[in-house]
Amino acid sequence: MTEGVEARVLEALDARRAVVNEALEEVLPVVPPERLYAASRHLLDAGGKRLRPAVVLLAAEAVADVEPGSRDYAAFPDLDGRPVDVMAGALAVEIVHLFTLIHDDIMDDDDLRRGVPAVHREYDLETAILAGDTLYSTAFEILLEAVEAPVRSVDALRLLARTCTQISEGQAYDVGFESRDDVGLDEYLEMVRLKTAVLFGAASAIPAVLLGADEATRDALQSYGMRVGQAFQIHDDVLDLTVPSQALGKRRGSDLVEGKRTLITVHAREHGVDVDRLLPDRPVTEADVEAAVETLDGAGSIDYAREAAHELAADGIAELEVLRDNPARRLLEDVGRYLVERGY
Amino acid sequence: MTEGVEARVLEALDARRAVVNEALEEVLPVVPPERLYAASRHLLDAGGKRLRPAVVLLAAEAVADVEPGSRDYAAFPDLDGRPVDVMAGALAVEIVHLFTLIHDDIMDDDDLRRGVPAVHREYDLETAILAGDTLYSTAFEILLEAVEAPVRSVDALRLLARTCTQISEGQAYDVGFESRDDVGLDEYLEMVRLKTAVLFGAASAIPAVLLGADEATRDALQSYGMRVGQAFQIHDDVLDLTVPSQALGKRRGSDLVEGKRTLITVHAREHGVDVDRLLPDRPVTEADVEAAVETLDGAGSIDYAREAAHELAADGIAELEVLRDNPARRLLEDVGRYLVERGY
Repeated sequence: MTEGVEARVLEALDARRAVVNEALEEVLPVVPPERLYAASRHLLDAGGKRLRPAVVLLAAEAVADVEPGSRDYAAFPDLDGRPVDVMAGALAVEIVHLFTLIHDDIMDDDDLRRGVPAVHREYDLETAILAGDTLYSTAFEILLEAVEAPVRSVDALRLLARTCTQISEGQAYDVGFESRDDVGLDEYLEMVRLKTAVLFGAASAIPAVLLGADEATRDALQSYGMRVGQAFQIHDDVLDLTVPSQALGKRRGSDLVEGKRTLITVHAREHGVDVDRLLPDRPVTEADVEAAVETLDGAGSIDYAREAAHELAADGIAELEVLRDNPARRLLEDVGRYLVERGY
Repeated sequence: MTEGVEARVLEALDARRAVVNEALEEVLPVVPPERLYAASRHLLDAGGKRLRPAVVLLAAEAVADVEPGSRDYAAFPDLDGRPVDVMAGALAVEIVHLFTLIHDDIMDDDDLRRGVPAVHREYDLETAILAGDTLYSTAFEILLEAVEAPVRSVDALRLLARTCTQISEGQAYDVGFESRDDVGLDEYLEMVRLKTAVLFGAASAIPAVLLGADEATRDALQSYGMRVGQAFQIHDDVLDLTVPSQALGKRRGSDLVEGKRTLITVHAREHGVDVDRLLPDRPVTEADVEAAVETLDGAGSIDYAREAAHELAADGIAELEVLRDNPARRLLEDVGRYLVERGY
């Protein structure tokens, strides 16, 4: 990825993050009961890349074949020229993501997220559970108002509801993996598909549904999102080991410390590394993490994960051939590449 | 309420509980990840009255003007004679209720529910949060398949999503009330409306939506459910104080012990009772609860709550006049009365 391409991707993501943040402000006001809604917004206000809603908006532009950034996302032309609120789709997807972050942090007992205390730390357990629950139904409420054609609403809702069920299943597998030492590569990839990739799949497919695209387009976009989403998560696992804590916004090597499985440790175990003893029993230092990373690197596990991420991203990008060649499609392709090459 | 009427209500509820339980078995099978789905079913298998789905089915029969129990709920005649799966509506409502029970037990740190350990006790916190999250989206998935007409699907989903958001708001108020000693009667009733009554409102209105009834019918049924739901909760607060632990399936006086506000304690405080000192600081005995109940009774607070419940139920029942007089409507009326007269 050349510097020029990366700059173009970052510019596209930045522009969409800005409009998404503005819209989030409007749909998630702090109203009574204030503590609940303030907690719901806590992680939003702390930042976040808004990757998933950016994918929604870019996919809408690619499907509608319009110049990126040229249209009002709240009254976006569908394939018959009628206005559709694709921003509502973007917000629904981001809000589902936000809800999963809040509940996941409770489950993993993580203290920090986006450089600020997790919601259950900043507020309390009760409020964090409720904030997630509130965002959950809010996402559905928002998506329901995106498009006038009820048959498209139903299809979009069905996709989002299925996605949410799958995300919970994925998280359940992930939690279960922590107490198992025989997780295989396929099992791990299936967990990532459920926990992370399906929401990227929904992000890509929902605009196609809202705009009235045919099934082949919807399916191809969903596959793009799924592959790119898996690649994104695997690259994230690589970054967790290779990027300093400050840039990560959380502690480097946190997956290792928490005993979470990643494609890297699953591969390492299959290649003779005693993953359970990578870190000492005493409080873990930065040097301990460094030594563990060297062992994993020596086993070829980090390179293996990098390559797997690149292959998945390439497979996802290939799915976009179903779309007309246009600037938005090329941006989606570049986003796919960026997600496995970004430094943090 | 005569014994004959009560027997008829119980028979109607029992019959519907049986078919609802059968249908729940089918839509909530224990599939991988098994631990997640077993946890999701845990409270279902422990029992439960299935009041809300029974209201859905009775309301469907009242709206469609058919003989109670005479039709297949999975292919129920809408107002144009086309088949609608009103059972799906009943299941969606019960599954939302189930999700809220699981998350509420975590928030209230309750150990027991329906005579068995709460999900976060029988399993663990992570699994309980996830079980609730899974049921949440499953309810939406099920409701989406109830009716072919997409415009009715959208209306039903909108109602359920709004209801879920309101339930979270209600629970947030309830949690917040525990640390306040100046909760007023109106505030308390609004909390009950959100936390409990809106789901009864959805239970009554969703069948009207699915069957294609006009707006006046939908609104009247929703009001019936809301009023009766508020009445149900207030009566529940009375029962918590007046029924022995064994019959309750949880400890008698648990609201007092946990410092939860009820219409009874809010009334008592406004009438000079020092509610915070009703129970001693030492471990609370059955005799302590008995003494506290006598104080509340002396202040007229228990009678006040009983009367409020009866008035609300009567208001709700009056809403049913919009419907044709038929046996199902009369059953709904009797259910409203039963909910404020039941012994546990």
